[in-house]
Amino acid sequence: MEQKKQMQLSLQMVSGYGAEFNAWRMPGADPAAYTNIDSYVERAKLAEQGKFQMIFIADTPALTSSLSTKTPMFPMDPMLALMAVARETKHIGLVATLSTTFNYPYNLARQFKALDVISHGRVGWNAVTTSDPNVAANFGSKPVNRQERYEKAHEAIEIVQALWGSWQEDAWTLDVETGQFADMDKIQPVHLQGEYYATRGPLPIPPSEQGQPVIFQAGGGQEGLELAGRFASGVYANPYDIESAQEYRQTIRQSAAQFGRNPDDIKMFAGFMFSLGATEEEALMRRKQLMDFNPEEIPGRVSYLGSMINLPLSVHSIDIDQPLAPQLLQRAYASPMDPRSPKALQLLQQGLSVRDVLAHGVINYHPVVAGTPVQVADFLEEWFLAGACDGFSIVPDASFDGVADFVHLVIPILQERGIFHNEYEGNTLRENMAVPYQYGVQK
Amino acid sequence: MEQKKQMQLSLQMVSGYGAEFNAWRMPGADPAAYTNIDSYVERAKLAEQGKFQMIFIADTPALTSSLSTKTPMFPMDPMLALMAVARETKHIGLVATLSTTFNYPYNLARQFKALDVISHGRVGWNAVTTSDPNVAANFGSKPVNRQERYEKAHEAIEIVQALWGSWQEDAWTLDVETGQFADMDKIQPVHLQGEYYATRGPLPIPPSEQGQPVIFQAGGGQEGLELAGRFASGVYANPYDIESAQEYRQTIRQSAAQFGRNPDDIKMFAGFMFSLGATEEEALMRRKQLMDFNPEEIPGRVSYLGSMINLPLSVHSIDIDQPLAPQLLQRAYASPMDPRSPKALQLLQQGLSVRDVLAHGVINYHPVVAGTPVQVADFLEEWFLAGACDGFSIVPDASFDGVADFVHLVIPILQERGIFHNEYEGNTLRENMAVPYQYGVQK
Ligand SMILES: Cc1cc2nc3c(=O)[nH]c(=O)nc-3n(C[C@H](O)[C@H](O)[C@H](O)COP(=O)(O)O)c2cc1C
Ligand SMILES: Cc1cc2nc3c(=O)[nH]c(=O)nc-3n(C[C@H](O)[C@H](O)[C@H](O)COP(=O)(O)O)c2cc1C
Repeated sequence: MEQKKQMQLSLQMVSGYGAEFNAWRMPGADPAAYTNIDSYVERAKLAEQGKFQMIFIADTPALTSSLSTKTPMFPMDPMLALMAVARETKHIGLVATLSTTFNYPYNLARQFKALDVISHGRVGWNAVTTSDPNVAANFGSKPVNRQERYEKAHEAIEIVQALWGSWQEDAWTLDVETGQFADMDKIQPVHLQGEYYATRGPLPIPPSEQGQPVIFQAGGGQEGLELAGRFASGVYANPYDIESAQEYRQTIRQSAAQFGRNPDDIKMFAGFMFSLGATEEEALMRRKQLMDFNPEEIPGRVSYLGSMINLPLSVHSIDIDQPLAPQLLQRAYASPMDPRSPKALQLLQQGLSVRDVLAHGVINYHPVVAGTPVQVADFLEEWFLAGACDGFSIVPDASFDGVADFVHLVIPILQERGIFHNEYEGNTLRENMAVPYQYGVQK
Repeated sequence: MEQKKQMQLSLQMVSGYGAEFNAWRMPGADPAAYTNIDSYVERAKLAEQGKFQMIFIADTPALTSSLSTKTPMFPMDPMLALMAVARETKHIGLVATLSTTFNYPYNLARQFKALDVISHGRVGWNAVTTSDPNVAANFGSKPVNRQERYEKAHEAIEIVQALWGSWQEDAWTLDVETGQFADMDKIQPVHLQGEYYATRGPLPIPPSEQGQPVIFQAGGGQEGLELAGRFASGVYANPYDIESAQEYRQTIRQSAAQFGRNPDDIKMFAGFMFSLGATEEEALMRRKQLMDFNPEEIPGRVSYLGSMINLPLSVHSIDIDQPLAPQLLQRAYASPMDPRSPKALQLLQQGLSVRDVLAHGVINYHPVVAGTPVQVADFLEEWFLAGACDGFSIVPDASFDGVADFVHLVIPILQERGIFHNEYEGNTLRENMAVPYQYGVQK
């Protein structure tokens, strides 16, 4: 009997709290999770119980948003968090973002490879170019234009991979009898000189069980696609509907093919958010509770929702706890520019109140399912079977209970349906992602 | 009764093995300790049992020596090693070197402060300028001249400290009731623009229990002294005798005073190596065993010893297992340029064989005591009571058993003599080093 194709799951850990930046106020949450490394370790352990292929920590080295009422969007330090997780887990992959623009390639190569060796081959690097001008300012730099950022990224990744391969696989002989620690003929400089970056090497770190870390990539238009096609084994994306996801996935696969690679060796992870409840109503309640923490934001959300369906909605002119009046709704149409609009309109047409429609997450950045475990599983199955992605980058609304709920309630459904694995396929991230062994520069 | 002045102890962890780079071959050693983070965690736990004030990991991001028969001089990655140790210890300080020349200040500020917060205020940064041209080449740079390196260091440390202070002590309000996560008026940019480095900030990391990491400094002539005087609370030094140590300590204290600081707020740690045995003979045997791993080095050592006492010694003309012939020894005199020479000559005059004199470590970089626990304690006491240092940076010959032996055999003697504490004074590195709380730029 042929084995069904199975999805891969990546758990995105934000700054310790989850996707909703006011979840720190929920009863049961640890308000100080930002500085408590246990918040990463405990959830990563749960994710490993649930056989998640990996955890993922995004990063932008700047204060990117007001912390007046909301938690940071990024962790204090992604590599330290992964190191803590590495010590207390055995199988789960460990993926972090670090910038190709604001790190020296040697430092990137070193820290990722060291962690890969320490974790016995479980590490991935999400290589991004960091467009945020706040970051540039923190590094004493003007904003760097996109072309230069992507040129630097190509150089940085090539140098990093060359350094990763500078200690040949069998260089570390470690022969106590003869006294040979390493075969120095097999540890050689790389002598790379680019326009922006250069290094001599070697990097004095031996191979890991998977050779070297897995490259991930995220976003960035045409330049990003090329970077992904050339180097990446995993791509994080934020498509909002199945069609655009399918299209993006095809484009990524083509890009890999253009670089002479097997398109199956590049896996796309679609961003996905959820709020779970025993019933859909309960899940919506949870999201409304979250909305209520920031009542000052509701007027803005209502008018934003209006713009999606081309109605001038305002908290002053409507009662948001009621469905829209039929004569108003009649004039609404989904904005063709926003893929989230049809779902918003559809829910309003079903007679949901404006508040409930907002609670469904229709204006969120990722697709959101607020519902039962079966509804969440249905969504994931539909996307996956449609070829919209190879897996999902999952962010719970609030991680203090959301990770456990997903692992205990959703994963078993996916496993029962045969679309998610019951056990890790191997010991390394490459094995568990089904991407090839790699050592040195991507060929 | 007045409390005796007490020394401080820092355990230097090299690349997992110890000071002797061929100790990986000793029976009982883990030959692969370089990649095994347990080698750091286990020894740090022992050091904590022994109430060491801190562990210290030096660093140079390059392959700095041949690994043909010897282990690396530096770890794969110092910050990851400290993170692992932080999770599994409670009291001991965590000090690592990172370069001010080859790291962006923002990245330095971030990783050290994050670790300081995670470890509840136990972190120190040994800020060095990294003169090694191998490192420059790894960062695509020509060797940087000393003046520029030290100018950069002043800028880098000032920026790092300013970023550390950019989140005011009481900025993180975390008020679940009112919903105020942080007081944004108290999180402000730093807007620093130097000649080499600049940053806007803020760094989104709250204060640790000790405010911010402790600055250490090591070496570097007049420029290094100034850097230490301005910023450092701890200085690692390698004096070879009591007199030069006393002198160096006075100079450091004066430098601090010149920057308007209390000289007692800067502590000098003298580098010290040991080999322990139940008897002196046993300790020497251990060192001779280590020497025997690299017999090809003996001729060089013999002639080096000769140059220290102004005799043309060669393995071809003498039997190294015998004392020197009296007519030869008569012509010897200690080289005035090398502070290690008098001890070498004295041991030869006592009638020790050339091999035994070498085994005493007379040509090593640090002072070495090969002897019993009492002999080691005597050495430390003599230096300390002479005001040669405030404490010691201790490196065992081989760490797999050397740390445990020091903790179990030497520490109790020091404690009994009242010159080493029985318990940690506080919870933070600053408290345990008796240096003042510090937040923001050193005043
Ligand atoms: C799913 C996803 C995850 C991303 N993660 C990060 C991240 O962790 N750090 C970051 O700086 N940028 C991240 N990005 C941003 C992109 O790398 C990219 O910089 C952004 O889309 C702007 O495009 P540009 O680089 O073409 O200007 C992410 C983008 C997507 C779609
Ligand atoms: C005890 C001690 C420890 C040191 N540790 C380091 C280190 O970890 N990394 C490093 O690059 N240099 C280290 N150094 C080197 C000094 O920082 C300094 O660069 C060196 O003495 C050369 O002097 P210069 O900087 O004036 O050229 C150390 C020096 C001493 C004395």
